[in-house]
Amino acid sequence: MTAPAPVILINGSPEGALSALDRGLAYGDGLFETIACVGGRARLLPWHLERLGAGCARLGFPAPDPAALTAEVGALAAGQARAIVKVLLTRGAGAGRGYAVSGAERLTRITVRHGWPDGEAAALQDGVRIRTAALRLGENPALAGIKHCNRLEQVLARREWHDPDIAEALLYSVSGLLVSGTMSNVFMVQDSRLRTPRIDVAGVAGVMRRAVLTCARRCGIACEEGALTGADLAASCELFLTNARIGIWPVRRLDERALAPGPMTRRLQGLLGELLERTDG
Amino acid sequence: MTAPAPVILINGSPEGALSALDRGLAYGDGLFETIACVGGRARLLPWHLERLGAGCARLGFPAPDPAALTAEVGALAAGQARAIVKVLLTRGAGAGRGYAVSGAERLTRITVRHGWPDGEAAALQDGVRIRTAALRLGENPALAGIKHCNRLEQVLARREWHDPDIAEALLYSVSGLLVSGTMSNVFMVQDSRLRTPRIDVAGVAGVMRRAVLTCARRCGIACEEGALTGADLAASCELFLTNARIGIWPVRRLDERALAPGPMTRRLQGLLGELLERTDG
Repeated sequence: MTAPAPVILINGSPEGALSALDRGLAYGDGLFETIACVGGRARLLPWHLERLGAGCARLGFPAPDPAALTAEVGALAAGQARAIVKVLLTRGAGAGRGYAVSGAERLTRITVRHGWPDGEAAALQDGVRIRTAALRLGENPALAGIKHCNRLEQVLARREWHDPDIAEALLYSVSGLLVSGTMSNVFMVQDSRLRTPRIDVAGVAGVMRRAVLTCARRCGIACEEGALTGADLAASCELFLTNARIGIWPVRRLDERALAPGPMTRRLQGLLGELLERTDG
Repeated sequence: MTAPAPVILINGSPEGALSALDRGLAYGDGLFETIACVGGRARLLPWHLERLGAGCARLGFPAPDPAALTAEVGALAAGQARAIVKVLLTRGAGAGRGYAVSGAERLTRITVRHGWPDGEAAALQDGVRIRTAALRLGENPALAGIKHCNRLEQVLARREWHDPDIAEALLYSVSGLLVSGTMSNVFMVQDSRLRTPRIDVAGVAGVMRRAVLTCARRCGIACEEGALTGADLAASCELFLTNARIGIWPVRRLDERALAPGPMTRRLQGLLGELLERTDG
């Protein structure tokens, strides 16, 4: 099946144009959200907008209007059985050259509707094969957690493999902390506890990560957001990945280690399905 | 004096348009050079193109054609007493969403001619006042040295002050290494030795940094590219900043510490002037 051509709005208009002086282009001075739309509705949209607002505060962007963004994303989602809507906000075009913000910038808002990728049912059911990235992530608390547009580390890590059977790579930080996948958060299960890396020096605080932690805590599952390493990974019996689109992907193989989707992973997939339906409705 | 409006070429054309799906915008998946043009000529252009080529190799971009870039930059520089030409290369528009590179991307080339800022003679002569940034730079050898477009750290550091009398801020890395200014490299003089931070875990290997080291080595001045800290800074008697436009700015004040442009700084300003004239001609 050929993917439908993306639908693109720039500042709300299909006729909108981008300035070559946009700071998003010059410096990655922007933020984005990748929103899964199912049954005509944008899933977990309030949490996406909350994270976007936190990113705007961190970077010193004016706060976007959640109602306007909700309407724009909602219009793109409407009537779509499954689609991905990406929202990208940049600080806008600079008045001149250089890093300094003049105050004259006006946010650039790009919203794009993409088709939903094919063939994900098998990943949800059977799990995915993943690898460990050679690239290490830099650590910077000033940028951790938010979904900003400085993503060269992820681009380089994703260039490390071409095997289409490998779905994702796990990334460690330069000091040896496990952080996340290139486009996903990672969870492990050890002694009936759910563990996931803290997102305080690197990584993105994913909305699906939040959804999984919310589900687990509501059900009394012990959860830990910690400083985790490869030793913790080796000591875990289940491993799964999350992001806004994929929900929960069990890991069936990490490098040479075989794993199986385990009972905690299955339980959380079920709980998550219920939460997503409620938040949708 | 009002700055002239920038002249913008996208893939060589003043009519060119940018795709909202450009990976430069999405991920900062790009590289740039900021080239000082004086007397109608692009200063140190071969070194700019060399660094750009190294960046392309690091990020896995196809190598740009130096002859074509030289011609395009030269045409923008021609007839300009003083101008800044910025070259920005991105990996181009992605075939779909996501970090993976499809191979179908075609580089986007943006060249922009800006006016030269006013009022820099005093900075060269009397020196500048600078501060220490609170923000620390992340460390990542995979991205150090090249002039890539992931510059949020510099944007955030530049947002720390608004006092127009402060020209620049010095940045340390998360592990306490002195790295550079937000838009400049830093040199210090101690016991007649010229010292500058190594650019192996953070920072940009500036072309003017290279020019200063070249001048110094040719004249037998002892040079060290090292792992330097605040203690080294405190032990130094002269301090100066470099970038492609400013050449050498002596530092006359760092936070509360007063300094004066010293003999080594003056000597290097003279030597640099000679080198820039030769490389121009």
